[in-house]
Amino acid sequence: MKTIPLRPLIREDFAPFGDVIEAEGAYHFAINGGMAERYHDLALVELAGDKARPMISLARGEPYALPLTLTFVERHPLGSQAFFPLSPYPFLVVVAPDSGGTAGEPLAFVTGPGQGINIRRNVWHGILTPLEGVSDFVIVDRGGEGNNLEEFHYPAPFLIADTAG
Amino acid sequence: MKTIPLRPLIREDFAPFGDVIEAEGAYHFAINGGMAERYHDLALVELAGDKARPMISLARGEPYALPLTLTFVERHPLGSQAFFPLSPYPFLVVVAPDSGGTAGEPLAFVTGPGQGINIRRNVWHGILTPLEGVSDFVIVDRGGEGNNLEEFHYPAPFLIADTAG
Repeated sequence: MKTIPLRPLIREDFAPFGDVIEAEGAYHFAINGGMAERYHDLALVELAGDKARPMISLARGEPYALPLTLTFVERHPLGSQAFFPLSPYPFLVVVAPDSGGTAGEPLAFVTGPGQGINIRRNVWHGILTPLEGVSDFVIVDRGGEGNNLEEFHYPAPFLIADTAG
Repeated sequence: MKTIPLRPLIREDFAPFGDVIEAEGAYHFAINGGMAERYHDLALVELAGDKARPMISLARGEPYALPLTLTFVERHPLGSQAFFPLSPYPFLVVVAPDSGGTAGEPLAFVTGPGQGINIRRNVWHGILTPLEGVSDFVIVDRGGEGNNLEEFHYPAPFLIADTAG
């Protein structure tokens, strides 16, 4: 089984797949007479198809243990999907380039404190994968009509592992 | 100066002004083979006017002390505005009914753990007001063209105070 190493979540590295939502390094300005700072417009929310609208949801996820066997990825043809953590634990962000309508070899990012993500429309990605502890998230994704889910099952699974350990 | 007492943030009480975003009491379903629970579609995101689009931002706010003197409120004619806290502290949610195009007497809600809010389009509200400590938030509001801000300055200020103390 091919091993996919973990890599830190860095805005530039993640850019082909979506946005890293974090205050660090982001455009910001003061609001409310200087009592607050706004880190502005950090994600491209994509809403395609009939009756498309943004939705705000919450999720609570059980943690996964590493190493983890990855057998499939999914994508949403009609909208982006943002996850921002409410818990102090990291989460795993698996994404994969498209390869002629199927998913290529995955990449595995691990979030640091204060980092969320927005996965672009039609980008192959893994399911929500908290690490270390039960984790809550804010989700911003698309509501509307039409089929917004495709799955791709890899012919051979990958092992996602902390190869530095 | 008239005193406005604090009240707990309860979904039914806040309904005329917007949504309480919280898992407690919300419609939910299992995802990812039962590893996570999704608390689904908790806020009505409103996007009016030219080139309207949803934006995801972060904010970090200095805390305010109570009692607090409220001199003005604002509203956004073109979009809703959601705030979800990333910090363990409560925040103050001031809203006011409309009274012929100006703001009526305000109400002052205080959030509990795990509670965010979505203020409806055109609802008079106070600025972001963290209590007790420096607080971070996820914000989902509207980007686009047009004037999306109105302010109303009360002819006489109100005192927002914890009258139970």
